[in-house]
Amino acid sequence: MIKVGIVGGTGYTGVELLRLLAQHPQAQVEVITSRSEAGMRVDEMYPNLRGHYDSLAFSVPDAATLGACDVVFFATPHGVAHALAGELLATGTKVIDLSADFRLQDADEWAKWYGQPHGAPDLLPEAVYGLPEVNRKAIKQARLIAVPGCYPTAAQLALIPLLEAGLADTSQIIADCKSGVSGAGRGASVGSLFSEAGESMKAYGVKGHRHLPEIRQGLRRAAGKDVGLTFVPHLTPMIRGIHATLYASVVDRSVDLQALFEARYADEPFVDVMPAGSHPETRSVRGANVCRIAVHRPQDGDLVVVLSVIDNLVKGASGQAVQNMNIVFGLDERLGLSHAAMLP
Amino acid sequence: MIKVGIVGGTGYTGVELLRLLAQHPQAQVEVITSRSEAGMRVDEMYPNLRGHYDSLAFSVPDAATLGACDVVFFATPHGVAHALAGELLATGTKVIDLSADFRLQDADEWAKWYGQPHGAPDLLPEAVYGLPEVNRKAIKQARLIAVPGCYPTAAQLALIPLLEAGLADTSQIIADCKSGVSGAGRGASVGSLFSEAGESMKAYGVKGHRHLPEIRQGLRRAAGKDVGLTFVPHLTPMIRGIHATLYASVVDRSVDLQALFEARYADEPFVDVMPAGSHPETRSVRGANVCRIAVHRPQDGDLVVVLSVIDNLVKGASGQAVQNMNIVFGLDERLGLSHAAMLP
Amino acid sequence: MIKVGIVGGTGYTGVELLRLLAQHPQAQVEVITSRSEAGMRVDEMYPNLRGHYDSLAFSVPDAATLGACDVVFFATPHGVAHALAGELLATGTKVIDLSADFRLQDADEWAKWYGQPHGAPDLLPEAVYGLPEVNRKAIKQARLIAVPGCYPTAAQLALIPLLEAGLADTSQIIADCKSGVSGAGRGASVGSLFSEAGESMKAYGVKGHRHLPEIRQGLRRAAGKDVGLTFVPHLTPMIRGIHATLYASVVDRSVDLQALFEARYADEPFVDVMPAGSHPETRSVRGANVCRIAVHRPQDGDLVVVLSVIDNLVKGASGQAVQNMNIVFGLDERLGLSHAAMLP
Amino acid sequence: MIKVGIVGGTGYTGVELLRLLAQHPQAQVEVITSRSEAGMRVDEMYPNLRGHYDSLAFSVPDAATLGACDVVFFATPHGVAHALAGELLATGTKVIDLSADFRLQDADEWAKWYGQPHGAPDLLPEAVYGLPEVNRKAIKQARLIAVPGCYPTAAQLALIPLLEAGLADTSQIIADCKSGVSGAGRGASVGSLFSEAGESMKAYGVKGHRHLPEIRQGLRRAAGKDVGLTFVPHLTPMIRGIHATLYASVVDRSVDLQALFEARYADEPFVDVMPAGSHPETRSVRGANVCRIAVHRPQDGDLVVVLSVIDNLVKGASGQAVQNMNIVFGLDERLGLSHAAMLP
Repeated sequence: MIKVGIVGGTGYTGVELLRLLAQHPQAQVEVITSRSEAGMRVDEMYPNLRGHYDSLAFSVPDAATLGACDVVFFATPHGVAHALAGELLATGTKVIDLSADFRLQDADEWAKWYGQPHGAPDLLPEAVYGLPEVNRKAIKQARLIAVPGCYPTAAQLALIPLLEAGLADTSQIIADCKSGVSGAGRGASVGSLFSEAGESMKAYGVKGHRHLPEIRQGLRRAAGKDVGLTFVPHLTPMIRGIHATLYASVVDRSVDLQALFEARYADEPFVDVMPAGSHPETRSVRGANVCRIAVHRPQDGDLVVVLSVIDNLVKGASGQAVQNMNIVFGLDERLGLSHAAMLP
Repeated sequence: MIKVGIVGGTGYTGVELLRLLAQHPQAQVEVITSRSEAGMRVDEMYPNLRGHYDSLAFSVPDAATLGACDVVFFATPHGVAHALAGELLATGTKVIDLSADFRLQDADEWAKWYGQPHGAPDLLPEAVYGLPEVNRKAIKQARLIAVPGCYPTAAQLALIPLLEAGLADTSQIIADCKSGVSGAGRGASVGSLFSEAGESMKAYGVKGHRHLPEIRQGLRRAAGKDVGLTFVPHLTPMIRGIHATLYASVVDRSVDLQALFEARYADEPFVDVMPAGSHPETRSVRGANVCRIAVHRPQDGDLVVVLSVIDNLVKGASGQAVQNMNIVFGLDERLGLSHAAMLP
Repeated sequence: MIKVGIVGGTGYTGVELLRLLAQHPQAQVEVITSRSEAGMRVDEMYPNLRGHYDSLAFSVPDAATLGACDVVFFATPHGVAHALAGELLATGTKVIDLSADFRLQDADEWAKWYGQPHGAPDLLPEAVYGLPEVNRKAIKQARLIAVPGCYPTAAQLALIPLLEAGLADTSQIIADCKSGVSGAGRGASVGSLFSEAGESMKAYGVKGHRHLPEIRQGLRRAAGKDVGLTFVPHLTPMIRGIHATLYASVVDRSVDLQALFEARYADEPFVDVMPAGSHPETRSVRGANVCRIAVHRPQDGDLVVVLSVIDNLVKGASGQAVQNMNIVFGLDERLGLSHAAMLP
Repeated sequence: MIKVGIVGGTGYTGVELLRLLAQHPQAQVEVITSRSEAGMRVDEMYPNLRGHYDSLAFSVPDAATLGACDVVFFATPHGVAHALAGELLATGTKVIDLSADFRLQDADEWAKWYGQPHGAPDLLPEAVYGLPEVNRKAIKQARLIAVPGCYPTAAQLALIPLLEAGLADTSQIIADCKSGVSGAGRGASVGSLFSEAGESMKAYGVKGHRHLPEIRQGLRRAAGKDVGLTFVPHLTPMIRGIHATLYASVVDRSVDLQALFEARYADEPFVDVMPAGSHPETRSVRGANVCRIAVHRPQDGDLVVVLSVIDNLVKGASGQAVQNMNIVFGLDERLGLSHAAMLP
């Protein structure tokens, strides 16, 4: 049984980790920390967990207690994992970080987008970007894993078959992405109120969003060269879900894109290439660790349109984190993640 | 492995049965019928099931195929189970009916509310009302089980502790109930459109709703006498969930209601009496086979207010159906039903 | 042209006042105050107002500027109007208070429910409760008007025909009320987040809600005696709207309730008694200053069920405030309020 | 007073016409037709209209009655206006068609996309495309007006400043559009159910949508040459609203796009170019006849991102129809359309 610690468990990725780990046969949450809610039972804050965590309460973060875990998940704002990861790694604890702290390989780039110096640049060389469909081998050996962001997961999985095959014009790729409101977290902010975000849609961060450099880094990896990317996120009146619509020009119209995508993901348990002509719905992955993809070439032109949906809290965060844990500990990658999505 | 058949699987209770049974370790869906969709794969209609039912397609109902199953669930409009249940029972197949066909013990009462003669009155004597918290022993022996309606489940579980203890004034009980839109089913109707049911609330069926006699029958059982009941259902702009708010006058203010409720449900795996002062949310049971209840006596008056929430598609339909199956086949009642609710 | 001031205009009742007054032919908003947003244009905060208030910006509250207005609306948290109303009245300015400061006639009752001493008990004798359907004559003469709360408006309009006619058993009346989330205001709070309040329903404040004494006071006025009231508010996943479901026993079954209600409101421009058998939807009043009511007596029993819907921000707040202004200034009561509700 | 007829008034554009015309000082709805609902009062079907149309009921379409009107709006499925428009024009009645019947100038193109022969090709030469921002002069003289589709309105208004100025690379323009569910109409269809379209997002019609040729035609007009367009519509869980996100490469980076857009729409009463850096929300135009636009050039690259929002039922249909009526009859273009949007 893997002993699990969670740092910063009061947000949505925290409760989702608890929900998923409650049904994981090989993991046991030993400690969950929160400075603000220390002493409160987790099922008092999250009544959906009543009956599943009868003796688990939030506690003040403590290096010794966390260091006694086999793995610690960080479900924290950026900056926190910078400060604590090194100490935990030194005790032999694996670190799986759901925040952005170790996603960008370049510390300067990180500092530019997050507005503060990188707090642990010495750990960057060993941090592994936890997208199993790309980095499975490295994840197996990793001590420190950076779980990809939600938009980056949906966008990269949609584009890497094209880029790896050298099929896309890399000078101009567009990612028009739509997210549910839970992506903004559980913090009290006016913009995330029901009466503000409901019954409305808007773009945001068109000037520049922190997931832009992360997606660009992943696309560069897949293409073997720099990629010109425009990323426009939109806020959508639903709780969960990301719908990414990707636009790229193909340099060779003769390739069977459907076959290409199916082949690329044939052995992937959590990427589902849908039949030609499909339009995946975000609800088809609600609560499940799956990315569903459909590839189109409208009017048989040059432009490829890839549709990609995930649940931002599962394949876009906590589910992918558990998937990484399974890989790191040599378990079946699907353990605790094999349930079907909830529809309707 | 229990061989399962499902009649009429294209609706919401059908897909929910498939979702729940996909993770059930002792059951296997062998056949699922639909006249209108015969030949279509279930995961083509319901993409959330992709990867879970690779070889299951809807078929035309056929007595021989269904009769080869150990149990057949009816997820059909009323009237269908009347026509088929007898034949299946004759082959030794258990029948678990999610429709209203066998819920009312009185065939005339049924005919009055459903506007047609009862189609199988001879089966009524052996039909067991599948509310495990009341009828567990009878369910164990049953061949034919009538799964309770969604409103009746929420309302009865909230009231029976009071009624069994003789604490409620039975002359006037009020059930003000609020349901998500999925309770109206997947049929195309104007009233269930997103643009009609969204951003709005209304009562309906105030004159008389088919769940009224069912609730009344259950309350009579618990009270040992007739109960004066007013039932007002409301349509609420959410997909899943029932919130029942029950009002009854107590005849003895000295009783500790919190203790009474906790004692009544102490051994029930799927009824959760919340701490005193709680306000259960429907989302705390979303996707889970749980009824959460809180009991209040505002301003220390005579009136008891019981708050009761379920997911109408789980504890209010398909989950309760699987719970009944577990009981009938001597399995742990919680098999396939132990996952936590999804929040947010 | 009536010169209008608004104190505390950054919340939902503030923007709704601006929306309604933008189309009012006899009123002009001269000043709107907000300490936190002083200097910001109103249409920068509320882009729906672009083109309607080209030169209006929030300013720091200032007695002289406000005192130069003919009328000042308070769209503030409780306590603010206590502090400022007296000074404004002294300058001859009318005060229409949308907060709770002057709704309860008893200063001690107010102090008990609001947890602080009443700040202007000397003004209470002249404060008029601004429910035009009850107090139109007094409103005409008033200098200080307390606009009723949202729940109290819906509940009182539904019950007063019964109470004024002496038809209801006043020992036990139940108000099961459902509100949209905008009723909780625009303040950043976790409970009002889209991801918390969406796709879910819950009761709250069952122990005691501040609108309870206000409703009770209004019912007492109508009945001529104390009324036993149980009030249970519920949070509903919609932005606007209140649906009140009222339960009362009639002492005389022979009365034609439909005729009674129609007669009571025959001359009321903003109360619509719907045809017998109706189920009013909240969307039928969205954005409009209307209360729609239907009266039922299910199964021809003693219990009357009254259904009452309003838009909490219009007839439940800002619209009613403008209606009061029209009365105070001798205008046609419908000025600026005659548009139809927006459906869908 | 303009005598107005409406053909096919039971859908959402019909009720929206009634809502808008109820507050129009110079128009009076004399007749509204519906075969299926003939005899029903309009306010029985649409209770939001109670008090506004006390004597208006649906009637069977009748050429004589319609021909006695000054103007007839068609709020019908495609094909109906083809059949009736000619006869009405012959009586001197103006025709304003909200359907797609006269939007495409090429009858063969129409036949290809709508799957049936064009029913009135002889009327095409005089049909005017009713986008006032482009065709105001022609509209003034028109007898037959084709009101633009919802997506086409949002997309064209966003792109024509670029195209008219010759600034966009016309070989590849992308329109990623998101629509509320009311765009699918009031017909009972499974895909538009609350439980299907709620809490989810999906693209649809990627292969080809009927609004594609209409947008392309409008862009060609503005650019003076063919435009390569990819149009991907998405279904969004909100009732009203369209958010169009347009992507085009600029051929000259030195142009001040903000100034260009502001100049283009300086005199337009219903197009609002928002300040630089804005992200318009669909709710900022809810219920109002406005298109709000913001123009971005992310990371100072070649790609322009234009954000454009409308209410699909107002500026995207019925409001624009009334705007056309005002122009045709020489009225102030803003009559009946000057109210602010409803927020929240």
